[in-house]
Amino acid sequence: MAVTMQDVAREAGVSAKTVSNAVNGTGRMSTETRRRVQDAMARLGYHVNRSAQTLRRGAARMIGLAMPGFGQPFCATYCDNVIAAATRRGYGTAILTYASRADGIEGIIEETHRMDADGWILFSNRPIPSSSPLLAQGCPIVITGDYLSHGRADVVMMPNVEAAAHVTGWLLDRGRTVAFAGAPEQWCDDRGLMDAAMADILRAREAGAAMRLRGYVEEFGRRGLDVDARLVAGSHSMGVDDGIRATERLIERRAGGVALDAIVCANDAVAIGAMTALRRAGLDVPGDVEVTGFDNASAAEYAMPPLTTIDPDIPQYAQLAVDRLIARIDGDESAARTFVTDFRLVERESTR
Amino acid sequence: MAVTMQDVAREAGVSAKTVSNAVNGTGRMSTETRRRVQDAMARLGYHVNRSAQTLRRGAARMIGLAMPGFGQPFCATYCDNVIAAATRRGYGTAILTYASRADGIEGIIEETHRMDADGWILFSNRPIPSSSPLLAQGCPIVITGDYLSHGRADVVMMPNVEAAAHVTGWLLDRGRTVAFAGAPEQWCDDRGLMDAAMADILRAREAGAAMRLRGYVEEFGRRGLDVDARLVAGSHSMGVDDGIRATERLIERRAGGVALDAIVCANDAVAIGAMTALRRAGLDVPGDVEVTGFDNASAAEYAMPPLTTIDPDIPQYAQLAVDRLIARIDGDESAARTFVTDFRLVERESTR
Repeated sequence: MAVTMQDVAREAGVSAKTVSNAVNGTGRMSTETRRRVQDAMARLGYHVNRSAQTLRRGAARMIGLAMPGFGQPFCATYCDNVIAAATRRGYGTAILTYASRADGIEGIIEETHRMDADGWILFSNRPIPSSSPLLAQGCPIVITGDYLSHGRADVVMMPNVEAAAHVTGWLLDRGRTVAFAGAPEQWCDDRGLMDAAMADILRAREAGAAMRLRGYVEEFGRRGLDVDARLVAGSHSMGVDDGIRATERLIERRAGGVALDAIVCANDAVAIGAMTALRRAGLDVPGDVEVTGFDNASAAEYAMPPLTTIDPDIPQYAQLAVDRLIARIDGDESAARTFVTDFRLVERESTR
Repeated sequence: MAVTMQDVAREAGVSAKTVSNAVNGTGRMSTETRRRVQDAMARLGYHVNRSAQTLRRGAARMIGLAMPGFGQPFCATYCDNVIAAATRRGYGTAILTYASRADGIEGIIEETHRMDADGWILFSNRPIPSSSPLLAQGCPIVITGDYLSHGRADVVMMPNVEAAAHVTGWLLDRGRTVAFAGAPEQWCDDRGLMDAAMADILRAREAGAAMRLRGYVEEFGRRGLDVDARLVAGSHSMGVDDGIRATERLIERRAGGVALDAIVCANDAVAIGAMTALRRAGLDVPGDVEVTGFDNASAAEYAMPPLTTIDPDIPQYAQLAVDRLIARIDGDESAARTFVTDFRLVERESTR
C-alpha cells in the first residue's frame, strides 16, 4: 500500500497540515519538527508525489519521447541519443510507445497529458494530417521521423533524398547495376515500380522510404538513365522481414535474367533482411551482390558482413530535436522550422 | 501557450466552475451546456490534464518501466514484450532510463514519483542493496534483470544456471572443447579464471553473467571434468565490444596452443562480438569455432551466421513481471516471490 501523508503525520506525531508544510516548504515549524517529519518519511519510505508538486510549481524538467516501439534497430540507437542529448541539457526523458495502440500516435495524446513532460518529441511513422490534434498540443512539440508538420511545429529530418542519391551515384560510378529494396508498396506491383507512380515519387516531401526512393530515381535521371522498373521492390514497411521479402523478389527477377549486382536498401533493417535473403539464396555479399543501408544504427556495424550504410548523424538528429524543444520550452515563439542533419557514407564490407 | 480551463470557459461563455464540472463529471448542467463546453474544448485543443485527474481519482492504469538504456539488443526486445503484455492487460507503459545518470537506478526514484504510474518494473543491471530506497517505493514494484530483492519485492529471473549448464553440456556431448566468454571480470586475470574465484562462482545467486558462468562450471563438475582456466575470458560488461575483447583473448590463447572449438557466450551481444572477433581473425563460425548466445533477442536471428542461443522466453519473462505487478496493484499482499522463466535451446547456424 502506498504510504500517505496521513501515515507520515501519525508516525511523526504531527498534523497532516504540518507534513504538507514540511514537504512544500510552506508555513512555519521548528527545525526539530521538520527533522521529525523527515525521519518519519524516511522510515516509512514516503516519497513526495512529484506530479502533485509539478502541478503547483510547473518545473518538471522532463522531455517526453513518443516512439512507435523498438522493432527497428534504429529506434534503440535513436532513443539512447535523445536521452543523452536531454541529459546534457539537464532534462530527464520519459518514453511512451504507440505501435501497440489501435489508434496509433494520435491515441498517445491522452497519455501525454497524464505525464508531466515540459514538451514532447514525437517520432512519427505515418503522415500527420494538418488537422491532427497532435499539432494542437498544450505543450511544445518537435516532430521527427521524416513527416511534415504543415508549418505548425518544428521538424527534424534526415537528408533522405540527397543521401540516397549519393549512395546510388557512388554505386553507379563503379559500374554497378543498382536495385532499390523497400520502396513504398503503393508505388509497386508484382513486376516492380509502376510507371504511374513516377510523378508522385518526384514530388515526395515526406516519409523516409519515399524520399530515399526519390533520391534513387533522381540520381538515374541526373545521369540521363531510365530506372528499370524491375530493379525496384516494394514493401509494406521497413523491417527486417520486409527486407527479406522485397529482396526475394529481386532475387527471382535476377534469376529470371535481370542484371543486378547492388541493392540500395531503404534502411539498415531492410539491408539486414536483404543480406539474409541473399545468403539463403546462396549469393555472396558483396561478391555477387553489394548491399547498402541507411541509418548507421549499431546493428549495421555488427552485421555480417558489416554493413556499408548512410550515416545520417543520429547524435546530431537527436540533439537538434532536443535543443529545439528546449528552446520552445524556454519561450521561443519564432516560426516553425525544418532542420536537416548532415550525412556521410560509411564504407564497410557489404560493398567492394 | 497551454490552453487553460479559463480559456475554455471564456470560449464557451460559461464559468470556470462549469468547465471543471463538465471535465470531472461533477455538478449538474444541461446537455446543451455540456456540449457547448465540449465544443469549446475541441476548438481550442484543450486536453484534460490527466495527472491532475489521477491525483483526484487514482486510476492511471500506467506501468512504469525502468531500463538502463538500449545499448543491448535484449533491451529493445524486452521493452516491446513488456509493452505488449501491459497492453493486453489494459495498461499503458512509460519508460525511464538510468544509464546516463551518475546515480544509476537509485537516482531514478525521484523521477518515478513525478510520473503517475501505478507500479514499476525495475530492470536492474547492478546488485540492489537491501537498504536501497528502490525497495521502499510508495507503489508496487517488480524487479527484473537477474538481481535479488532480499525478499522485499517480487523478482522475475531467467533460468541462468540451468540454461548455461544445458548448452555447455550439449556442446560437451558433441566432443567440443568449450570456452566461456563474458565472465564477470573480477573473477578473471590475464590468464583466465582465477582459482580463488571458484567458491564465489558456485555460490552465485544473482547477476546473469555470474550465474551463467556458474552453470558452465557446474556442468564440468557434474561430468567429473576440471575447467581449464584458460578457456574462460572475463569482460567488464556484456556488450558487443566486451564480447570482441574477451574473444580476442581466447583467440590468442588458442593460437598459443590451447585447444578450443566452441564458445558459450554470456549473452547474444557478447556472442555477436565473439563472431566479429573470430571473423576478423580469419576463423570460420561454425567451421573452426562454434558460438552460442543467451537471450534470443531479434539480433540473434539476423546475425550472420544466425546465432544458436538460449531462448529464455522473453515474452513469458515480460508477462510474468506485468502480471505480478498488476496483481500487486490490485491489492495482492502475499509474500514476495521469485519467478523463473522456461528456456529452450534454439539451434541455428553458428553451431554445427
